[in-house]
Amino acid sequence: DTVIVEAGGLYALPGLCDAHMHIESGMLTPARFAEAVIPHGTTTMFVDPHEIANVLGLAGVRLMNDEARQQPVNIFVQIPSCIPSAPGLETPGADLGPSEVAEALKWPNIIGLGEMMNYPGAAAGDPRMLEEMSLTMAAGKTVGGHYASPDVDDGFHAYVASGPADDHESTRESDAIARVRQGMRVMLRLGSAWHDVESQITAVVEKNLDPRNFLLCTDDCNANTLVFDGHMDRVVRHAIACGCDPVVALQMATINTATHFGLERELGSIAPGRRADLILTDDLATLPILEVYARGRHVASRGAMTIETPMINWPDDARHSVRTGRRLDKSDFVITVDKSPKDNLITANVIGILENLAPTRHLRFEMPVVDGVVSIDVEQGISQVALVERHRETGRVVHGFVHGFGYRGSMALASTIAHDCHHMIIVGTSHAEMAMAANHLAEIDGGISLWQDGYEQATVHLPIAGLMSDSPAVSVANELENLTRAMQACGCSLNNAYMQHTLLALAVIPELRISDLGLVDVNTFSLTEVFV
Amino acid sequence: DTVIVEAGGLYALPGLCDAHMHIESGMLTPARFAEAVIPHGTTTMFVDPHEIANVLGLAGVRLMNDEARQQPVNIFVQIPSCIPSAPGLETPGADLGPSEVAEALKWPNIIGLGEMMNYPGAAAGDPRMLEEMSLTMAAGKTVGGHYASPDVDDGFHAYVASGPADDHESTRESDAIARVRQGMRVMLRLGSAWHDVESQITAVVEKNLDPRNFLLCTDDCNANTLVFDGHMDRVVRHAIACGCDPVVALQMATINTATHFGLERELGSIAPGRRADLILTDDLATLPILEVYARGRHVASRGAMTIETPMINWPDDARHSVRTGRRLDKSDFVITVDKSPKDNLITANVIGILENLAPTRHLRFEMPVVDGVVSIDVEQGISQVALVERHRETGRVVHGFVHGFGYRGSMALASTIAHDCHHMIIVGTSHAEMAMAANHLAEIDGGISLWQDGYEQATVHLPIAGLMSDSPAVSVANELENLTRAMQACGCSLNNAYMQHTLLALAVIPELRISDLGLVDVNTFSLTEVFV
Repeated sequence: DTVIVEAGGLYALPGLCDAHMHIESGMLTPARFAEAVIPHGTTTMFVDPHEIANVLGLAGVRLMNDEARQQPVNIFVQIPSCIPSAPGLETPGADLGPSEVAEALKWPNIIGLGEMMNYPGAAAGDPRMLEEMSLTMAAGKTVGGHYASPDVDDGFHAYVASGPADDHESTRESDAIARVRQGMRVMLRLGSAWHDVESQITAVVEKNLDPRNFLLCTDDCNANTLVFDGHMDRVVRHAIACGCDPVVALQMATINTATHFGLERELGSIAPGRRADLILTDDLATLPILEVYARGRHVASRGAMTIETPMINWPDDARHSVRTGRRLDKSDFVITVDKSPKDNLITANVIGILENLAPTRHLRFEMPVVDGVVSIDVEQGISQVALVERHRETGRVVHGFVHGFGYRGSMALASTIAHDCHHMIIVGTSHAEMAMAANHLAEIDGGISLWQDGYEQATVHLPIAGLMSDSPAVSVANELENLTRAMQACGCSLNNAYMQHTLLALAVIPELRISDLGLVDVNTFSLTEVFV
Repeated sequence: DTVIVEAGGLYALPGLCDAHMHIESGMLTPARFAEAVIPHGTTTMFVDPHEIANVLGLAGVRLMNDEARQQPVNIFVQIPSCIPSAPGLETPGADLGPSEVAEALKWPNIIGLGEMMNYPGAAAGDPRMLEEMSLTMAAGKTVGGHYASPDVDDGFHAYVASGPADDHESTRESDAIARVRQGMRVMLRLGSAWHDVESQITAVVEKNLDPRNFLLCTDDCNANTLVFDGHMDRVVRHAIACGCDPVVALQMATINTATHFGLERELGSIAPGRRADLILTDDLATLPILEVYARGRHVASRGAMTIETPMINWPDDARHSVRTGRRLDKSDFVITVDKSPKDNLITANVIGILENLAPTRHLRFEMPVVDGVVSIDVEQGISQVALVERHRETGRVVHGFVHGFGYRGSMALASTIAHDCHHMIIVGTSHAEMAMAANHLAEIDGGISLWQDGYEQATVHLPIAGLMSDSPAVSVANELENLTRAMQACGCSLNNAYMQHTLLALAVIPELRISDLGLVDVNTFSLTEVFV
């Protein structure tokens, strides 16, 4: 059955590997994600299904792994290590701990432990974290790292010694050098919003460190990036544009990555018994992806898929995961105070959005109170934020205020992507629209929806766990474009505005966040009140 | 407790790793082997205790691992994969199969499966071999290779696809290239008798292949080499002398090897939580090993140990392993024929020794018969060979003839090293001396002993499993020197003469061998008779 491919004048390269990524960031199922990236030459992905695990627990990881295993390309799955991300400060849909890690390590296609985000815990010897890492290493598998602090002192040393073998959170050349000196492999990241290659690849290009311990990854790519810019081909081209030798840049996206995960014989070889994943191109520097082969099959040609990517039958649990337990009413979003404050003003703790940055600021504003109800003071740039519990059918609503979106008029934006627990987050200037947007998301099983003056303006449909679409990437990208325009029409001109929205509950990054348990002061890792 | 070492003007290098070796080849216990090689800068060894496993089974592997774990340097142990080496043609002291592999994989310090010597079986899908490899890979550990054929065709492809990740048996540049093309790592070997570096390192030095997949190893070093020439330092110096860049040669004995076994973070790093194994030297090309540190401890200085290497208490089973069950008499070695043959001559199948080569030739000689007894015809260059069963106390004697040692007079040489089953092999020109040598070895619990004219002339004492000494390397080296001189005095001037003796039973290498079941025709993998 041998097929002979005439490729005179072309280069044959190993298929590209993404060393660390989250499929959910594309808002696509594994099948739809694969369909989007294969024409870009990606044939291997190392994925941490951290988001779906927050919604559906180990069953969600299993579903991702089941669909991953059916793909024509390699999607190796890591077991999420930190669920919940912020223990005691939030309630995910399910917990994952050492016993779940031990269980998942028995499954096929599991490649290791997902990024160890609890770096203070790992460094301090938190028994739960150490046990998860120890189980993984005993199984001969790789522990992923995530060390998000700029310090490379004692805490860093303790963290690296505890188990994580790689890190994608470094941003400076000196960070990268510190990591390889410590015996880690560095993952240089170019995601939709992360730009960490240029600042660190100088360690190889200028400082001449051995490149074998440098890998490329995306971490998070949204559907727009995948559809309009590419995937790992984009990262390799960028590394070359930063002065990296093309062959070295390609090694950082192929053999280096395969070696890191113990797959150096399995991947990248054209030999009997191996996975013949390869790309044909006619230029190593600009890297046009002409033809793609995965496990010996021709899977894409000149940017288009030549085969389909199989989907699993996602079960009801996954398709109807927005469980608020009741319809919400605009009264659910009204914030009242017991007695009229002095001058009808009350001091509120307000989440302050920072343009282009993941951290927020902890702001304080004087808010007007009218008839015992706290007004949403758009003049001061403030919107109301609400988190609706959606995993256990309590429909419980937690209140807060946020500054920086710039919304005006009568509107609300609701999302069931709400890192990391993925409850429902609603930001709005009107209680009525907040209820409308929330109820709509419950009806359509999740997504991101913007309502204005009583009408739906734009919706991204994400019916799988409220996180992912099983429609093609281009349709999600179009919905996202519409959403961005609709947000702008409401006065929000932030970069990556919907990402800022979905990060409001990320209770591990300073300074102030909202969770299902209340407002979270991330500087002190404690819950706090809306009003001072 | 920090100790500051002033090393101005010196280079600090990672300690050297031997990628593949057998401790038993040094005729030394792990502790004594470590003591001999640490001053040469070896701090990590990957060892396959194949010989002791043939004598004592899994218990022998356990004892080696127990002593290995106590050493100040790293001795990682592989589980022997092929015991017996030639199923159906020989009887080792114990079998090792998939269930023993599964058991040993649970032990600490086990790094993978030992060299898969049954390459025809692995290539043909022998279920026992596939199960051993599959268990090892499922545990995330490395399968060692041993592909001793010059063919790199279908059988080679099937072999590599079956699991082995490395090979140290290639001898030509084209072999080395074929192996890395197939996704294997190549181990370039310089042992006491193996010289496979110079002929293959051209793949890197001249053909510019990426050196990261090339490793250095010794496979087999006797005590003389260790005492007089060195260990991995000798191999690295040789690689440099062959034109290899010193840093690349050092990588082939450090980071490349560590990476192959998934230990790249553990070994070679000076960082918290890692094993600080390092060497201080003042010249990278001539590589004098000035100081050696292992796991942060100063273990050797200017060629001498600064600490002791701990020994286990070897149990009676291991110390009294020469179990013939009875004293042997010279009559046990007399070969009689039922009726007088024509002209008093009988045609015998004779093992023909080839100078400097492991294979033997299958020769035929007319042997004189006197009074029904076959004479040992030293005029034709023939000695008698006998294999005495020593594992199950049967004392059974198998007879044969051997050509090429050149022995004269009245002598016999007996050895309890007799690859791979390690019964007792005696070669002699006199039935009486054959019995004396055999009985002496049984009394002293094993070794190699040469008797002449009724007296012991030289003996290497190997009381541990009949294979190893727990005396210092220099004492074993001196005994071996004496033995070599005594063999020369008996007329044998072969290179590595005692090695040729100990390989007479190696029933996996053509053409004619002797086992406890009879003469073995290795070309047809069948038993044959002494007389045609």
